[in-house]
Amino acid sequence: MRIALDAMGTDLAPDPEIQGALQALADFEGDIEIVLVGDEPALRAAVSRHGPIPERLTFKHASDRVTAEDSPASVIRKKPNSSIVVGLKLHQQGEADAFVSAGSTGAIMATSLFTLRPLPGVDRPAVGTLLPTLGSPCLLIDAGANVDCKPQHLVQFAHLGNVYVRDAIGTAEPRVALLNIGEEPGKGNEVVAETYELLSRERGIRFVGNVEGRDIIQDTCDVVVCDGFVGNVLLKFYESVAAVIVAMLRKQLDGRDVGSLFDEVFRVLDYSEYGGAPLLGVGGVSIICHGESSPKAIRNALGVAARAVRSDMVKHSAQDVTAAAR
Amino acid sequence: MRIALDAMGTDLAPDPEIQGALQALADFEGDIEIVLVGDEPALRAAVSRHGPIPERLTFKHASDRVTAEDSPASVIRKKPNSSIVVGLKLHQQGEADAFVSAGSTGAIMATSLFTLRPLPGVDRPAVGTLLPTLGSPCLLIDAGANVDCKPQHLVQFAHLGNVYVRDAIGTAEPRVALLNIGEEPGKGNEVVAETYELLSRERGIRFVGNVEGRDIIQDTCDVVVCDGFVGNVLLKFYESVAAVIVAMLRKQLDGRDVGSLFDEVFRVLDYSEYGGAPLLGVGGVSIICHGESSPKAIRNALGVAARAVRSDMVKHSAQDVTAAAR
Repeated sequence: MRIALDAMGTDLAPDPEIQGALQALADFEGDIEIVLVGDEPALRAAVSRHGPIPERLTFKHASDRVTAEDSPASVIRKKPNSSIVVGLKLHQQGEADAFVSAGSTGAIMATSLFTLRPLPGVDRPAVGTLLPTLGSPCLLIDAGANVDCKPQHLVQFAHLGNVYVRDAIGTAEPRVALLNIGEEPGKGNEVVAETYELLSRERGIRFVGNVEGRDIIQDTCDVVVCDGFVGNVLLKFYESVAAVIVAMLRKQLDGRDVGSLFDEVFRVLDYSEYGGAPLLGVGGVSIICHGESSPKAIRNALGVAARAVRSDMVKHSAQDVTAAAR
Repeated sequence: MRIALDAMGTDLAPDPEIQGALQALADFEGDIEIVLVGDEPALRAAVSRHGPIPERLTFKHASDRVTAEDSPASVIRKKPNSSIVVGLKLHQQGEADAFVSAGSTGAIMATSLFTLRPLPGVDRPAVGTLLPTLGSPCLLIDAGANVDCKPQHLVQFAHLGNVYVRDAIGTAEPRVALLNIGEEPGKGNEVVAETYELLSRERGIRFVGNVEGRDIIQDTCDVVVCDGFVGNVLLKFYESVAAVIVAMLRKQLDGRDVGSLFDEVFRVLDYSEYGGAPLLGVGGVSIICHGESSPKAIRNALGVAARAVRSDMVKHSAQDVTAAAR
């Protein structure tokens, strides 16, 4: 299996990508090959500084880089030699089985949609993000791709999230919940109330009903379905609450020694631990990482990508969504 | 000024209510009178245990109590002698200038709407909740009353929140922001994008544009406007994130002595500190407190209610919303 890794994605690229790739090759099973996509001469030189270039690490030259100034939708046309477009085309043409990038979220999404195309039966591919909880992480889907959703879109998200958590994270029979403002059926706005009805009758997923905001990180479910507006607000809020609370505690502690206390808490709250956010519902494996990803986060994203490929996640997603649409 | 306080609201009623009322009478200026609404003989006996009954504390008998089993909308008909209905009728009839209760949120909202009526120009009264931030607290409106909102409703929320924060909290020229998934105009779903346009042209409020989930508790605004679905999810999520993080830290600390560290953080995060959640846009002052309110939270809610009355908040709300509708 070969994974294309955008080597121009993180804020500190290509170092976190190179270190993450080397770590993944060292840690994971022997069938993984990684293709570093970027400025080949520079990448070769940078990798060489870590020792001889491993056999399972290859390069694909891409001379250009997507920046925050580029309009996401125009990247495929205006920057055909960018690492995002070159890497995704490798995947599209079957020369890679998955794509991982810490570059512009919008550009990765738009280019993935264009190259990998939505799966049959998927109206709206969606972004999933694993949130740390008191127990196993919970996949929030959609985390921001679709701001206006109809009930059938939310039902598709439920299937896509279910297959991802089962196949790529390895949770058997994920508990799938609908984000709402009350537990009883009939609660919520029109879209959510109708989605509840649909999910209650849906086969192939273990629907556990409505959950409220307070339940998400209490390990009550493995997948929580919402529209991309709510999901994105929640996700960004979560990051900031953690940071604010730790800042408050630091101030209170006022220099007292508590060892690695905060490092540990930040580690638990750091969702990059879980390997990036997949774009689900397209005909391939496309994983979006934070621009601030550490080598470890890149390594973990490569691990999740490998697991998604090995488990045939995309095939299962297509089967489940198609069966649901019948 | 006379404030009706439901003495049957908190989970531990009437003790937190009685202690909160006594504290408010001791702390606040001399023009406040409090009417305890509940089982008069029992209340008199309970108050007497704290010393002689203060002159400014009176009683209004209510023999019945609203429970979680009661359907909120039917309370006014089925439980006319409940403390919520009796207290709100006192306010409606001008025998009290405000109403404070820690009882069923739904019942207080429904009964307030029925007795105090929406203000002219207000289509949808909304619940505001002050969230603790790194700086001054931020009012989230709507925190759950209206799950399907149109742009004009969100504009009304902006005015109602603006007047509340200015009059009852005392922040001059509150910064009013729209909750969105990006900072640029045009971002977000259809309703929010249109609301941005309306708020940009709106007079009488200091609109500071879109804020994202991460900005809310970073002291970037004093009022954040959203629909009641998003607001309710966020509010409940916030409470749980704080609790989960503190639980993680406690586990990490593993018995090490850090003094009052957590008490202090919980105090900062405890939004009951700010005096309950007002139902805004009705023809009166109706403040909803947590069922777990402490005496201090009740005292603070009475203080906010007094400030709202003294500042003529309801009159200003009506003026602003009416001017906006022109």
